[in-house]
Amino acid sequence: MTGTVVVYPGTFDPLTQGHEDIVRRAAALFGHVVVAVAASRRDALFPLAERVAIAAEVLQPLANVEVVGFDTLLADFVRARGAKIVVRGVRTVADFEYEAQLATMNRKLYPDLETVFLTPSEKYSSVSATIVREIARHGGEVGQFVPAAVVAHLQRKF
Amino acid sequence: MTGTVVVYPGTFDPLTQGHEDIVRRAAALFGHVVVAVAASRRDALFPLAERVAIAAEVLQPLANVEVVGFDTLLADFVRARGAKIVVRGVRTVADFEYEAQLATMNRKLYPDLETVFLTPSEKYSSVSATIVREIARHGGEVGQFVPAAVVAHLQRKF
Amino acid sequence: MTGTVVVYPGTFDPLTQGHEDIVRRAAALFGHVVVAVAASRRDALFPLAERVAIAAEVLQPLANVEVVGFDTLLADFVRARGAKIVVRGVRTVADFEYEAQLATMNRKLYPDLETVFLTPSEKYSSVSATIVREIARHGGEVGQFVPAAVVAHLQRKF
Amino acid sequence: MTGTVVVYPGTFDPLTQGHEDIVRRAAALFGHVVVAVAASRRDALFPLAERVAIAAEVLQPLANVEVVGFDTLLADFVRARGAKIVVRGVRTVADFEYEAQLATMNRKLYPDLETVFLTPSEKYSSVSATIVREIARHGGEVGQFVPAAVVAHLQRKF
Amino acid sequence: MTGTVVVYPGTFDPLTQGHEDIVRRAAALFGHVVVAVAASRRDALFPLAERVAIAAEVLQPLANVEVVGFDTLLADFVRARGAKIVVRGVRTVADFEYEAQLATMNRKLYPDLETVFLTPSEKYSSVSATIVREIARHGGEVGQFVPAAVVAHLQRKF
Amino acid sequence: MTGTVVVYPGTFDPLTQGHEDIVRRAAALFGHVVVAVAASRRDALFPLAERVAIAAEVLQPLANVEVVGFDTLLADFVRARGAKIVVRGVRTVADFEYEAQLATMNRKLYPDLETVFLTPSEKYSSVSATIVREIARHGGEVGQFVPAAVVAHLQRKF
Repeated sequence: MTGTVVVYPGTFDPLTQGHEDIVRRAAALFGHVVVAVAASRRDALFPLAERVAIAAEVLQPLANVEVVGFDTLLADFVRARGAKIVVRGVRTVADFEYEAQLATMNRKLYPDLETVFLTPSEKYSSVSATIVREIARHGGEVGQFVPAAVVAHLQRKF
Repeated sequence: MTGTVVVYPGTFDPLTQGHEDIVRRAAALFGHVVVAVAASRRDALFPLAERVAIAAEVLQPLANVEVVGFDTLLADFVRARGAKIVVRGVRTVADFEYEAQLATMNRKLYPDLETVFLTPSEKYSSVSATIVREIARHGGEVGQFVPAAVVAHLQRKF
Repeated sequence: MTGTVVVYPGTFDPLTQGHEDIVRRAAALFGHVVVAVAASRRDALFPLAERVAIAAEVLQPLANVEVVGFDTLLADFVRARGAKIVVRGVRTVADFEYEAQLATMNRKLYPDLETVFLTPSEKYSSVSATIVREIARHGGEVGQFVPAAVVAHLQRKF
Repeated sequence: MTGTVVVYPGTFDPLTQGHEDIVRRAAALFGHVVVAVAASRRDALFPLAERVAIAAEVLQPLANVEVVGFDTLLADFVRARGAKIVVRGVRTVADFEYEAQLATMNRKLYPDLETVFLTPSEKYSSVSATIVREIARHGGEVGQFVPAAVVAHLQRKF
Repeated sequence: MTGTVVVYPGTFDPLTQGHEDIVRRAAALFGHVVVAVAASRRDALFPLAERVAIAAEVLQPLANVEVVGFDTLLADFVRARGAKIVVRGVRTVADFEYEAQLATMNRKLYPDLETVFLTPSEKYSSVSATIVREIARHGGEVGQFVPAAVVAHLQRKF
Repeated sequence: MTGTVVVYPGTFDPLTQGHEDIVRRAAALFGHVVVAVAASRRDALFPLAERVAIAAEVLQPLANVEVVGFDTLLADFVRARGAKIVVRGVRTVADFEYEAQLATMNRKLYPDLETVFLTPSEKYSSVSATIVREIARHGGEVGQFVPAAVVAHLQRKF
């Protein structure tokens, strides 16, 4: 493992094709990408361990990507990893506004921390994990929105 | 019943004057309007059957409007009705952004489905069912925001 | 020509694949689509007659679409055509906010007028005629953004 | 107490440096500022009495500011105080859109009521009580975001 | 003239019913309102002197309102008037974002300066001077958007 | 010069403290930063050569930053430099929406091109070159918004 380490945090409940697209872009730009799955306080559809397992399964082909769960403050997690860069995908104006606010607060907690925003391919610009969960709950086809491995996990769940 | 069938989905918890305005506009533009009341997973103020009954009572004067409840995927409901057009009212930038995202995902689930956005009269551009529920909960006057029949339902509730 | 007449106004300087997508959607929803090319006061790249000719050439395969230029108030044009529906494509939050404002003012000028908003396919959600002109001006490839006939017009221009 | 009375409502769960900044600005513009702490139906981190106590402790040095809790409709509270002006701080586009909607509905409930929007110093433009609670929950340093007295309350809580 | 002086700046090219609504609200909240008509570098439809004259004619019934033209930096104008408060009307998210940016820069130029944002009545929430000029230019009816005195000025112009 | 080359394009008319902040952040993240000053078709305050000279003067202390002018398509410029990453600063929702659109179109012109968005320090989040030019034109103090060297250039200009 050489080169710059970046952290791509999220709930990934579950990992979508849009998340995967951002991971691939980050992995092409930076030396090592830590996909950091947040424990999250809200009722998640999948428990943390399963969200980590799903992401690891999907992203396994990418040599410079690792997947870990975390349940601390993001700024502390990034510092503990010796990293300084957080990557976030932004699709909408609402995403951007919230993310920019978070990035500023994180900079105050850890002044060396820089948040780098990427946009997914337009193909994935409307894919939302929240809507994917709704579709799966109603028995709809989610194969266009999530990686194949995730379809299986969703089917077992419902 | 002749002409194009369109589906106007929503939670309608409860139906506001803004919703009624959109139904009237849709009924003037298209042959038949199906007001589709979503079961919704969130804790609704009114149960589905009552939301359907309220909407039916209010919209009864409109000859080409019918009200039904549904608890499936919207795309599946629209297809099952033999329809291809969904109507949505948009008031704010936040509404629009979320609705556009949903419309794109629905198009992937059912490629023939088109979502048509209408704007309510400016008189209703700030009316929100969420705020109406808050006002009613505190015993405020909601007669300017919801049809008369809905005022009675809200009074019985609180 | 039977069925509902709708007007799709714009500057179309030049017609993009995104505009074409909206025309196709409108033509599938309504009986007759009048693509109304606005004279526009700003310095257009193509004169009105050429913008009309380009749009007519591209849209010629669509049987229920006609292309005309106009230099009056949109509300007056729509009324003169005996129409009541304006179609507009919206891609961004900024588009939507301006278009909703315009729709409200047009409703005051002509109370029967309804503006119906459609979203283009996500493939075209970032295509902007302004950016297309910039690319063409610098000799860039615009074939991914405009119909083939428009590429030729742009090449003759620069 | 002389001069115009204004009401600055909020949940203040807890009071942040951004809220304090808005109170100071309101207190410089108007004769008397009532900081009105809303009971709120959502699960608050601090109970109403503690939120009132915290705000009162922090704002005690400001002679023309008082802090009270309320559990009625805001429009009714403002009228009962004999006031006509509500002050709200806005940081983001999303804040503004929601606040403008609320202001319009409040005007209908109480036509004399005017909502006046202020922007905080840019130093506080990203401070959010929601994110502060998240940071405190994870044991992070919140001293840059909330007044010193609030840090102590948060530490006792977690 | 007693009480707080506020400055309401703008181009007012021409004064609309929306502007008039904001002036009335400001005049109800504050002791004295200076409507400050900016010279503006862009090609205005009406020269500065005429914009001042139109605004003065329309606002003449309001005892605590005065109209003046200015061609200096707004922060300098406000300071020279001995005022500390600028009033701005905001209708849209785009308005708000630009105005908030300007307010922050003005605070840096003149730290005592506070910008207070008001929202117009929803009746005027879509009225834009830019669109009014377009309508007047095409001979459309502007009587629903501008005060009667302004209609006459627009008719003489076109 | 080793490490990843990134291009930070803009008009820089003139370079502000906000631009300088983004350059410093980019220079800390990447091996080499090319500040690419666009010729721009709009009437710029400073001619291209002077904008390049100003930026070069201000950024001279940064060892891994170079400043060049360009008058081609951005995607072509980036490719010609052998680079794949464009850096853009975003302050507002409107900025973000336009930049995301541009990033998508640039990706179609040059599929390897990735646009990376950074946010400036909140101190600079309201600094706009357009407003700086307005202030300077009216003889206002711009020293809080632009680097010292730029103040001198602006003074000579007005």
